[in-house]
Amino acid sequence: MKQYLEFSKEVKEAIEAGKPIVALESTIISHGMPYPQNVQTAREVEQIVRDGGAVPATMALIDGKIKIGLSDDELEMFGNADNVAKASRRDIGYLLATKQLGATTVAATMICADLAGIRVFVTGGIGGVHRGAETTMDISADLDELGKTNVAVVCAGAKSILDIGLTLEYLETKGVPVVGYGTDELPAFFTRKSGFPLSISTDSAEDVAGMLKAKWDLGLEGGAVIANPIPEEDELDPAFINGIIENALQEAKENGISGKETTPFLLGKVKDLTEGKSLVANIALVKHNAKVGTEIAVAYNELNS
Amino acid sequence: MKQYLEFSKEVKEAIEAGKPIVALESTIISHGMPYPQNVQTAREVEQIVRDGGAVPATMALIDGKIKIGLSDDELEMFGNADNVAKASRRDIGYLLATKQLGATTVAATMICADLAGIRVFVTGGIGGVHRGAETTMDISADLDELGKTNVAVVCAGAKSILDIGLTLEYLETKGVPVVGYGTDELPAFFTRKSGFPLSISTDSAEDVAGMLKAKWDLGLEGGAVIANPIPEEDELDPAFINGIIENALQEAKENGISGKETTPFLLGKVKDLTEGKSLVANIALVKHNAKVGTEIAVAYNELNS
Amino acid sequence: MKQYLEFSKEVKEAIEAGKPIVALESTIISHGMPYPQNVQTAREVEQIVRDGGAVPATMALIDGKIKIGLSDDELEMFGNADNVAKASRRDIGYLLATKQLGATTVAATMICADLAGIRVFVTGGIGGVHRGAETTMDISADLDELGKTNVAVVCAGAKSILDIGLTLEYLETKGVPVVGYGTDELPAFFTRKSGFPLSISTDSAEDVAGMLKAKWDLGLEGGAVIANPIPEEDELDPAFINGIIENALQEAKENGISGKETTPFLLGKVKDLTEGKSLVANIALVKHNAKVGTEIAVAYNELNS
Ligand SMILES: [Mn+2]
Ligand SMILES: [Mn+2]
Ligand SMILES: [Mn+2]
Repeated sequence: MKQYLEFSKEVKEAIEAGKPIVALESTIISHGMPYPQNVQTAREVEQIVRDGGAVPATMALIDGKIKIGLSDDELEMFGNADNVAKASRRDIGYLLATKQLGATTVAATMICADLAGIRVFVTGGIGGVHRGAETTMDISADLDELGKTNVAVVCAGAKSILDIGLTLEYLETKGVPVVGYGTDELPAFFTRKSGFPLSISTDSAEDVAGMLKAKWDLGLEGGAVIANPIPEEDELDPAFINGIIENALQEAKENGISGKETTPFLLGKVKDLTEGKSLVANIALVKHNAKVGTEIAVAYNELNS
Repeated sequence: MKQYLEFSKEVKEAIEAGKPIVALESTIISHGMPYPQNVQTAREVEQIVRDGGAVPATMALIDGKIKIGLSDDELEMFGNADNVAKASRRDIGYLLATKQLGATTVAATMICADLAGIRVFVTGGIGGVHRGAETTMDISADLDELGKTNVAVVCAGAKSILDIGLTLEYLETKGVPVVGYGTDELPAFFTRKSGFPLSISTDSAEDVAGMLKAKWDLGLEGGAVIANPIPEEDELDPAFINGIIENALQEAKENGISGKETTPFLLGKVKDLTEGKSLVANIALVKHNAKVGTEIAVAYNELNS
Repeated sequence: MKQYLEFSKEVKEAIEAGKPIVALESTIISHGMPYPQNVQTAREVEQIVRDGGAVPATMALIDGKIKIGLSDDELEMFGNADNVAKASRRDIGYLLATKQLGATTVAATMICADLAGIRVFVTGGIGGVHRGAETTMDISADLDELGKTNVAVVCAGAKSILDIGLTLEYLETKGVPVVGYGTDELPAFFTRKSGFPLSISTDSAEDVAGMLKAKWDLGLEGGAVIANPIPEEDELDPAFINGIIENALQEAKENGISGKETTPFLLGKVKDLTEGKSLVANIALVKHNAKVGTEIAVAYNELNS
């Protein structure tokens, strides 16, 4: 296994020093945001992690290796290149064997973090059950990954284009804890409220860390969703954004967009129709997640040392 | 892991002596039956296990520990307290970390039993696929637990408020053996027949024990459902009980009851509308399951010693 | 575990010599084809594997043992006997404990291969999501097995009576790689094209072997589907075969056929209605899969030695 992992100097030193580490994904860079905001956000998020007392480890597949921590040049390349494959669990083996560039989704980043022994991962939003999945069975591999891989995912809920209620049901069936961080309902990505109550709610990073430690000490495999609402000053007006999402979904349907292409298409549409306001909100929530995720990584590291 | 487990004196001695042990759940006490019948039934079920030559281990979460075997005072507390959380797989870590009282569901009891090395668990009925789950995706975490945790669950089928056919399909997909104990169709909890045939049927505790041993010796992870029909003299009239369940489901729908609240609401309604007959039947079938489950635990223990 | 496995002399010698081995299933013999074509095909497939430089290991449950490699007499028995149970994951333990004859499905053959350390398995088609499963939840245990057991399944896609699009969605959620072998869309069993694109496409046995090695070296549990289209000269006319499948599905519905009985019923109908052309095509595709699967097994064996 070790021969596939390549650690950046910063991450290697953090491991040796027993410092807290926060995993970050690369799909958000290569497929989730336009250039140059993607690279700029990636750098700022990494700096927020450092400022909070942890070390960032952005994951990617490069030249047959899983990179744990990217250099500045590599961040730039993933923000710019158009030959980067979106890598989920099913793609990792083939992309490594054929030495292709792969940007890791939530599922794949969880896998890479787990392989590197990193237990906290910060992103924008997780994948989930797509609207209409009752008949299309279009359900993100992120959810099954949360059911089996020991990494906590700090996010602003499921991406807003998904069916939030069905996503919660699926996670409940898989036994995945969903923690409302400073809220007792699941946030809805661009907005703070979804109307779906959660059974676990806390604003204590120590309680989250304690939950993770008890879960994993007992061998209860799987991750956790730490759902952290977008800051009040950054949230979009619910009526505005929900109307736009409805329109985007309609347009995807009319154009026969499906599978892997759906998420980038919808996110692109939402960005256009909001005249960029969604991108601003997305960047704000990711940074806020980085702040909270770093606090949790620090607390978890203290509990285990 | 060991630091989270606290064994009662009776269970500890049974483990040391190599005696058979039967796991029991606590949600049936705190959320499944009214006081004082819940506590009285729990005590009688424990005694049936002892009379059959095994030792009962009722599971619960108390003060940051998983209790394997409850004292009489603890049984009383779980039957009376109103601050007991319903603990499924997703809740265990948080309830332990925050030292809350947790009553274990079927899924959580399987986990606790597995951690304690107990392979046979007796309950009333398992959770399953809810009626309407084709669109709501409301599927109990018990089913995924049966797909991965090595504990046999002796029950009278799935709770009658569920969709029995879909529950069987789901278990088939997960590769979970469902054994008709003295029947070739799945029992329907309050009644002996559901009309759904099973591929495995036996009335031999030794055959069940042999099946479990072969399965687990081979490393085929997951549990098994041992479906034991309610005794003939205790079963409810099918037309009577099914009519009442239809009414209760209708009422739940009209009142917008969903998720975690559904099962207690429906079971409460069924109890009211049957004027207590369902409670009497529920107690009878649990006791019968305790008798059969103890025989299986004894047979399994002999095979492995 | 070892006490349940019984290796044929040929397979045992292959293991000791470090030779490549190809697993084969027995349900295709006992339930998938009529006598004597089933036995004749089984023998010819085994010979194709040998001619390609590997050793065949047909799996079956006999007298409380998992047989890894069948004798000629045993092949004949499985082709003829009418007391052979169809063994999927859920059935293995009980059939072994009660010493019944069991013909292994795709799921069960994957399990047997994994227990024997065999990583490549050749069959006709995998099970999948049944048409109408949005409401029936009828989903083959083969798919969940592919999500957790480390065996590559070389096939001509999912059996044609299934819903191919939903099967692909389900495999994506479970993180299972689906490789188009010499095609960039999933083949449709009797025909070369289904219209459903695949994200991985190659005609290199070395690349497939490299993908498997990277996946399993990293501990990414689960199998892979290597989808190999039926040869052009053997494929059926799409309009012809699809019309017949529609008729067979209609007839199954009208006759209330469900569960375990569905696949043999539909395959039987398809055979009748095609006046045997489907059987000829089925035999041709299995042999072609044996040729390709052997190449992959040889390549995988070289990579690991
Ligand atoms: Mn999808
Ligand atoms: Mn539920
Ligand atoms: Mn089925």
